[in-house]
Amino acid sequence: MKIITSVNEMQEQAGKWRVEGKSVGFVPTMGFLHEGHLTLVQQSTQACDITVMSIFVNPLQFGPNEDFELYPRNIEQDQKHAEAAGVDVLFCPTAKELYPQELPVKMVAVKRTDRLCGVSRPGHFDGVVTVLSILFHVVQPTVAYFGRKDAQQVAVVQGLVEAYRYPVKIVAIDTVRESDGLAKSSRNVYLSNQEREEAPFLFKALTHAKKLAKNHSTEEILKETESIILNNTSGKIDYIEMLSYPYLEKIQFAKGTVIIALAVQFSQARLIDNVVFTLEEG
Amino acid sequence: MKIITSVNEMQEQAGKWRVEGKSVGFVPTMGFLHEGHLTLVQQSTQACDITVMSIFVNPLQFGPNEDFELYPRNIEQDQKHAEAAGVDVLFCPTAKELYPQELPVKMVAVKRTDRLCGVSRPGHFDGVVTVLSILFHVVQPTVAYFGRKDAQQVAVVQGLVEAYRYPVKIVAIDTVRESDGLAKSSRNVYLSNQEREEAPFLFKALTHAKKLAKNHSTEEILKETESIILNNTSGKIDYIEMLSYPYLEKIQFAKGTVIIALAVQFSQARLIDNVVFTLEEG
Repeated sequence: MKIITSVNEMQEQAGKWRVEGKSVGFVPTMGFLHEGHLTLVQQSTQACDITVMSIFVNPLQFGPNEDFELYPRNIEQDQKHAEAAGVDVLFCPTAKELYPQELPVKMVAVKRTDRLCGVSRPGHFDGVVTVLSILFHVVQPTVAYFGRKDAQQVAVVQGLVEAYRYPVKIVAIDTVRESDGLAKSSRNVYLSNQEREEAPFLFKALTHAKKLAKNHSTEEILKETESIILNNTSGKIDYIEMLSYPYLEKIQFAKGTVIIALAVQFSQARLIDNVVFTLEEG
Repeated sequence: MKIITSVNEMQEQAGKWRVEGKSVGFVPTMGFLHEGHLTLVQQSTQACDITVMSIFVNPLQFGPNEDFELYPRNIEQDQKHAEAAGVDVLFCPTAKELYPQELPVKMVAVKRTDRLCGVSRPGHFDGVVTVLSILFHVVQPTVAYFGRKDAQQVAVVQGLVEAYRYPVKIVAIDTVRESDGLAKSSRNVYLSNQEREEAPFLFKALTHAKKLAKNHSTEEILKETESIILNNTSGKIDYIEMLSYPYLEKIQFAKGTVIIALAVQFSQARLIDNVVFTLEEG
């Protein structure tokens, strides 16, 4: 596995693959890799000639009071995991390298961002589309892989790529979970023992909500989901919502493809999870 | 010459060239071609395997009170000129084809836009960077050619490409002029006979200003330039400025690379022109 820290070097390498006609799979991450990330790598190595993973804790997608400094990092261990999973190039630029100057053009995500994490994390998705625009130009991937745990991110990125015609295919991969249902996340490491025991109730609540979706109103579903979280965890609910997917519009009843998503703030970790599913007509 | 109107077809064609290792030169235009555009094509055909020209009058870069409807169009004549000049593919999508939906991500040009045309045309450069982002992803050029007449556009596009690492080289080509010095422009067609006789004084004023640059203050230079325009044309001065280039910052004296630029509103046409030059030290 080759490690590249220079943007120019990465872009030149991508140009060479382009000339050679190689298909490039890309797994953008913020590091502290877990099985979720490695599943994305697995999909990429199966489908593409070359797999590039980026590790970059993107300051632009963290708010001033968020956990940018605290976000877990372990680059040595990440290198081992990435290499073992079959990554060909690990791209880890510094922030100074990726953003050498104040950006002369701002990107602002104006759709699919007024709900869910977009509400409590203003500017978050602006940071996401900005860094991905740069990374897509540098790595020039054929396919880019994202986890469905960040369902809103997938919806926003899909919108970006379609509207601006980035020559890349976006593939979303199902959330990888612990055996008790907790969605794998780099932030899980900041749960206390007590919180770690409570955390599986996020997915339990979502699974229950999904069962209710066919015969209950959004209001009824969210009320039940909320009580499961409140009665079984010490976390503070940031949001629980049921929306159309991928447009993320309010709905009174589940119809077509919908997402039920939640964010719960524990003492040191804010966890998100969701279920996306399609209801058959009739 | 092949004419393509479909975005998908253009992007597929670009993908094929990519696999074949062809270098692609790109000349984005709003049509109503004149010698200025064709000089860009000439540069492209000399340097690249393939030359793509786009013709797209981009609604996003016109303000609500500007001349979008009035902007001159003549697609049949443009096709003849483009083919004769050696264009391989003429890409002419409709607005509906390029912008099928409201954009979910906005691009906002925040630097190099608070002076010159950026002042009187708010949102203009946002529209420019937006359409170029899409066109660059669709055409995937190796090199893109721009005229120096739109010097601020060149500065903004250069900033975009550098910061977001678009894998394209921007080449700026000197302004092509009529024998009397008037910069070639699609909008010249809307000058009255009287105005057409006055219009060369724009470049005469700039040429005089450039001569003054070494030994006069910005204030003195602009005052003289202004009187030349006022005394010799019926146009209304929108701006005359001398700034650093390409950063477009205010300067009290010319130093390093500078631009002297002006915009003059005639009855049916707003004309812009500029000179960019570098002063030797000492």
